[in-house]
Amino acid sequence: MQSYEQSLRQTQQFLLDHDDYLVVSHIQPDGDAVSSTLAVGWLLSCLGKKYTMLNEGPIPTRMKYLWKAEEIADMSVNPPERTFSHVICVDCADFQRVGQTQRYFDPNALIVNIDHHPTNNGYGTVQLIKPDAAATAEILFDLLKQFDIHWDADIATAIYTGLLTDTGGFRYANTSPKVMEIASELLSLGVNGPELAETLLEEMTLPQLKILSRALEGLQLTPEGDIAWVSITPQDMVDCGAANEDLEGIVNYPRNIQGVEVGILFKVIHDQAVKASFRSAGKVDVAALAQIFGGGGHTRAAGAKLDLPLDQAVSLVLKEVKRVL
Amino acid sequence: MQSYEQSLRQTQQFLLDHDDYLVVSHIQPDGDAVSSTLAVGWLLSCLGKKYTMLNEGPIPTRMKYLWKAEEIADMSVNPPERTFSHVICVDCADFQRVGQTQRYFDPNALIVNIDHHPTNNGYGTVQLIKPDAAATAEILFDLLKQFDIHWDADIATAIYTGLLTDTGGFRYANTSPKVMEIASELLSLGVNGPELAETLLEEMTLPQLKILSRALEGLQLTPEGDIAWVSITPQDMVDCGAANEDLEGIVNYPRNIQGVEVGILFKVIHDQAVKASFRSAGKVDVAALAQIFGGGGHTRAAGAKLDLPLDQAVSLVLKEVKRVL
Repeated sequence: MQSYEQSLRQTQQFLLDHDDYLVVSHIQPDGDAVSSTLAVGWLLSCLGKKYTMLNEGPIPTRMKYLWKAEEIADMSVNPPERTFSHVICVDCADFQRVGQTQRYFDPNALIVNIDHHPTNNGYGTVQLIKPDAAATAEILFDLLKQFDIHWDADIATAIYTGLLTDTGGFRYANTSPKVMEIASELLSLGVNGPELAETLLEEMTLPQLKILSRALEGLQLTPEGDIAWVSITPQDMVDCGAANEDLEGIVNYPRNIQGVEVGILFKVIHDQAVKASFRSAGKVDVAALAQIFGGGGHTRAAGAKLDLPLDQAVSLVLKEVKRVL
Repeated sequence: MQSYEQSLRQTQQFLLDHDDYLVVSHIQPDGDAVSSTLAVGWLLSCLGKKYTMLNEGPIPTRMKYLWKAEEIADMSVNPPERTFSHVICVDCADFQRVGQTQRYFDPNALIVNIDHHPTNNGYGTVQLIKPDAAATAEILFDLLKQFDIHWDADIATAIYTGLLTDTGGFRYANTSPKVMEIASELLSLGVNGPELAETLLEEMTLPQLKILSRALEGLQLTPEGDIAWVSITPQDMVDCGAANEDLEGIVNYPRNIQGVEVGILFKVIHDQAVKASFRSAGKVDVAALAQIFGGGGHTRAAGAKLDLPLDQAVSLVLKEVKRVL
């Protein structure tokens, strides 16, 4: 297998050798997908190449500030009038992720696969894959560095956007020294980091906000203020139109209260079953706590299922947490 | 006036020349105050110097993970038994910020004033002040670089903590290229960035969470889903024990809903007056909007006061926002 440096050079050569590229990313594009599409477009425009940027659907409104974001054609509105023989796929772990845009690939199209997902299955003619990159935008940073081109705030903003969104605002475990080093360089080029953070990182769906609100309404604390908990019933889920993924992050609210050592979310599954999610502010090992109830996890984030009605589950869990505190 | 480099060397010399230092920071210490106190302590321990770390009150529980955080004496619990002739004050814009700890300064104590606040009034014998530093921890990074010492994860974690908290998680306008460059270096030294972000950035007071919950209960959206608003009455403030500063950030929740272009917080002042805070997702210039009502601000964050009852203020504001959309 060739090295990352070899792949960079091979990709560079591919971009120099041909013309009239189609640049696509995955369906329901996120920050990294949009940024990476635009970064390739920006590079091709610098090289004086013809290119078309395409996605199966629309670009999220919040990303419209990006350089030429409006030129990423929404296939359902502005489908291309022809097919392409040279395609660049960014941030797609497998070929199917490009969605219906593949209708515009020639049957024998040469495809470049640029991606950071460890699960990437290696489709395409040229592969530029770096599984330990925080974002595909990080790989594009490296690729663009191969060329003798003048960087401006537009391209810096695009790449920063990919890094910012895929690292959850420089908070996830993929926030490597290299990510911060690149961010530093991009800020020097005039990126408005604070504005991007505000625009990109704080979006919620309406059901997410509704179920958060419902949960907070029922917030409870011990008299000592060291344990805080919220609960959510199946009826709450229906009322708010919420799915399980909308509950992500809610348990942090009780945990984040000043003075609280353990925050808990009780999710009622049915009359006789409750899922408890535990978060610790540091003092309590909630993995050990969860184990008491047959669950598990990490020292600061763990969970367990209790085959009990909600009120009994709450009593039992509180008793155990108090014992530890 | 001497340069920053000269101040760094002068401070370095002061630390080399003496022994038995008292290290203090401001009352109600935040992340940067604690980090900076510990960073000075760490440096002095490397230099084999005697030192005492002191604060008027306790260190926040959430910062107890820091190297020797438990050695910062809480004056109300473990007061020193004597006074000190060499004092290092960190992150204190003026002398009064050290609070009651000044009781332990000799009347003729030599004081080093290390700080990043632009309002620092230049007290002390030696001043090491850099107003464009994001945090005092950034200045300590520079100071420690003057010495030939081996950096480890403990000192890196302390400095990272100061940067992280004073930049709001690398989101405020003080997030300079240099901040990100330092963060990169500190991560290389083994800082657990994700855990620090979780522990330090998400804390809320109970009144803050209660008033947020109260506001979200009354969340409203236009049928088109492009304008969302919440309102808070004086009674809500009383019920939740909330002060005005507890409202910070609430207006972002309606603005952050997917599809919403303008989020609004209506804060009832009395029967005939409402303060409206506007946040834009990017499309609408809310500064121009606020100006209609005699207010002002920035394109994405603005506000105005309306001398109307709540219901009339809401109607009028919605009419104007709809006109712009």
